[in-house]
Amino acid sequence: MAKQENILIIGAGLCGSLLALRLGQRGFKVHMIEMRPDLRTVDISAGRSINLAFSNRGLKAIKMVGLEAKVYSLCIPMHGRMVHDIKGNTFLSNYSGRENEAINSISRELLTALLLDEAEALDNVTIEFQKRCTDVDFENKIASFEDNISGNKFTVSTDLIFGTDGAGSALRKSYFEERKFLFSFSQSYLTHGYKELTIKPDKNGDFKTYKNALHIWPRGDFMIIALPNLNGSFTVTLFLSYESGTYNFNNLTTHEIVTEFFEKEFPDALELMPNLAIEFFENPTAPLGTVKCFPWNYKGHSLLLGDSAHAIVPFYGQGMNASFEDIVEFDTFLDKHEGDWESTFKDFQSHRKIDTDCIADLAIDNFHEMKDHVANPIFQEKRKIEMVLESEFPDVYHSKYSLVTFKETIGYCEAMTIGRAQDKAILRMLAANKISLKEDLNELLKKVQDETSNILKEDTTAKTFKY
Amino acid sequence: MAKQENILIIGAGLCGSLLALRLGQRGFKVHMIEMRPDLRTVDISAGRSINLAFSNRGLKAIKMVGLEAKVYSLCIPMHGRMVHDIKGNTFLSNYSGRENEAINSISRELLTALLLDEAEALDNVTIEFQKRCTDVDFENKIASFEDNISGNKFTVSTDLIFGTDGAGSALRKSYFEERKFLFSFSQSYLTHGYKELTIKPDKNGDFKTYKNALHIWPRGDFMIIALPNLNGSFTVTLFLSYESGTYNFNNLTTHEIVTEFFEKEFPDALELMPNLAIEFFENPTAPLGTVKCFPWNYKGHSLLLGDSAHAIVPFYGQGMNASFEDIVEFDTFLDKHEGDWESTFKDFQSHRKIDTDCIADLAIDNFHEMKDHVANPIFQEKRKIEMVLESEFPDVYHSKYSLVTFKETIGYCEAMTIGRAQDKAILRMLAANKISLKEDLNELLKKVQDETSNILKEDTTAKTFKY
Repeated sequence: MAKQENILIIGAGLCGSLLALRLGQRGFKVHMIEMRPDLRTVDISAGRSINLAFSNRGLKAIKMVGLEAKVYSLCIPMHGRMVHDIKGNTFLSNYSGRENEAINSISRELLTALLLDEAEALDNVTIEFQKRCTDVDFENKIASFEDNISGNKFTVSTDLIFGTDGAGSALRKSYFEERKFLFSFSQSYLTHGYKELTIKPDKNGDFKTYKNALHIWPRGDFMIIALPNLNGSFTVTLFLSYESGTYNFNNLTTHEIVTEFFEKEFPDALELMPNLAIEFFENPTAPLGTVKCFPWNYKGHSLLLGDSAHAIVPFYGQGMNASFEDIVEFDTFLDKHEGDWESTFKDFQSHRKIDTDCIADLAIDNFHEMKDHVANPIFQEKRKIEMVLESEFPDVYHSKYSLVTFKETIGYCEAMTIGRAQDKAILRMLAANKISLKEDLNELLKKVQDETSNILKEDTTAKTFKY
Repeated sequence: MAKQENILIIGAGLCGSLLALRLGQRGFKVHMIEMRPDLRTVDISAGRSINLAFSNRGLKAIKMVGLEAKVYSLCIPMHGRMVHDIKGNTFLSNYSGRENEAINSISRELLTALLLDEAEALDNVTIEFQKRCTDVDFENKIASFEDNISGNKFTVSTDLIFGTDGAGSALRKSYFEERKFLFSFSQSYLTHGYKELTIKPDKNGDFKTYKNALHIWPRGDFMIIALPNLNGSFTVTLFLSYESGTYNFNNLTTHEIVTEFFEKEFPDALELMPNLAIEFFENPTAPLGTVKCFPWNYKGHSLLLGDSAHAIVPFYGQGMNASFEDIVEFDTFLDKHEGDWESTFKDFQSHRKIDTDCIADLAIDNFHEMKDHVANPIFQEKRKIEMVLESEFPDVYHSKYSLVTFKETIGYCEAMTIGRAQDKAILRMLAANKISLKEDLNELLKKVQDETSNILKEDTTAKTFKY
């Protein structure tokens, strides 16, 4: 059923491409314009987020557009965290006690290309590249662009504008600068930045270390991680402070110091990366920021989606998943208010904002968990208990990680509330020697459930007063 | 002792004027430039923050510059909240159980004029008005201005730039837009706005209602408050949602509806404001925003202070007090790092930022407390217990309100942590019928102290993991 509205989508990354595909499938006339070159024709990755974690919430969206089989073929399952200590010893900490639950390493480039191909195959979707949005007049629904190659400037007049143009969104910038309405906005940076490196395949093209895990070298205030790629390589990311600590991005200025740092802190990783010191200076160092804002819409004219509305740090592996889940949620509100765009936008955003705020906060929590806590004995004991509970009671017990990552039927906020209470309950009882894996598991489960329930009920009066 | 540095202060409001005075007293060459006309010569109040709450933290600063006697003469003490119910019944809820503790209503205009006079009286301080800062090149320490009257543009080259130019700071805007460093920034608006109104003096020039209190008409989702002025009037502020609820700023569009609203919700206040409906449409409706950012400095070149660094909502009566306390704290770091401006700025801001974040959050908590909780029986019971404890054990017990407002020797953050734990403790025990004013007061104090201490120790393991 063809729809009358002309829709302009600014930004053809993962979120924009999925949105274009979905709106195209629904019959809208979609025009999508992207600032960068078409990544299907040019290599533009250049050391930034080469692969991503793809999991259940993202899968919901991929199923919605009917692409699960094609996407599965791009996935490398990762069953847990392979933790590397300073001597090169490793242990695998599973993500779930249920057998079928894993997250997946997927190429940003291949997944985006797939979505672009599918969207472009629709008659009612057109895509242009290399045209940068310079300004959005959201009152009159006119967006201005500049062609990167010719330098020509042009405008697009449309019925609806979607900003899926990422953390540096032009639509969001127009909201901020025009001051037509009260626009709450925050950008907050961690003191750490990141840099991507590579473990190349061995000479047979095979993986140099265990393929089906997310590798972590936790060192308290910094870490490296590694995710596998289909070609046998791993993309490695160093997360490090810009200016504090013995080694930091500001003082890692020579090949010698970089090599010394890796020799001391990540000797087994250094062995896998003989060209480390060269690549270190070829690739950019990028900041880690969180963006929150509200409202996302202006009347029934425009809407921010994905990173443009809620950019998060990468530590929960939920950035793309959250953006994809936006489109799934948005799709349900399209049905609910068919044709009434202002109601669709308002209802969607007030529902969705709660969850995207929660995943932003969870992602920062997980930064500390990954670089530090995974190496802590009481934390490890908690994880062991949770793995046993998930394995023994697969339909009953879900850890915070599982609630966030694998239980896509509940929102991030519910996952956070229950998950944090469970973490508190287990840590509180472990610290008081009230639980152990030696006891009857039914008893153990009941204790954890009761204490979690107590914590959730604690201070209900005080909570009424928001203390 | 004359100092060599030339200092430019952008913004001659309360914070800038105090800073100019203090730096002038210390011997620096101070040049302060303000966008607005000189409020000593022109009436510019026009319905915005006519009076303010002045309390112990602000007083520290006033004592530092030696002006306490002059400032006392501008103060009207307010000993507590006079709560007005819908039938016009009132009760006084004291701010403290200690006799000598009160907050003060003070005129923004008179206090600013005093500080300007004192600063201007120093040979090494010059002040200009009606010149708007349009841009700050903080790398090269050059600020650009435009004269409001002549339209002339000029620049000022200096050694150090202080931005005390309020919530819409030009210096902060330059930090944000130039992207020379990672600048974390947030602006967040409440869904409510405010409008100022007036209760005029009676025909004898006397106060129409009780002078020495902050009057509150709490109505759950909205409220009015009133603070006394030296001329016998009260400045009344309506805090109301822009768009939700039966009555809101968007639908209060006629004299009839405004009068109906006040007749129904604030009948005793309406009696005191016969011209209410006219004034309602003369005065602006203003938003309620919180601004946080970091860093406040750029190298040893520039620093944000006061609202430009941390604008807060007015509900704790701490906006001016926090800005004044900035100057007191900053003054101690001037001594610590004499002459090393980058260390002074960095050390100051990393110390101070923690406390200004806390008062920002406390101020939002108090919005809910004032418009809603003060009318709640269990909250009132808590306040009664706290008043008795403060009165019986004046050196031992301090409520959260007292810690924030009257205990200027501790920071906002410590006040918040202890104060919230105490609130939780008392509410938890009241809800469980474990405490009452009928018991021995020494026993009661001990129970509150023990439960507070338990709450502060709760989940220390979980806190290690930041859950």
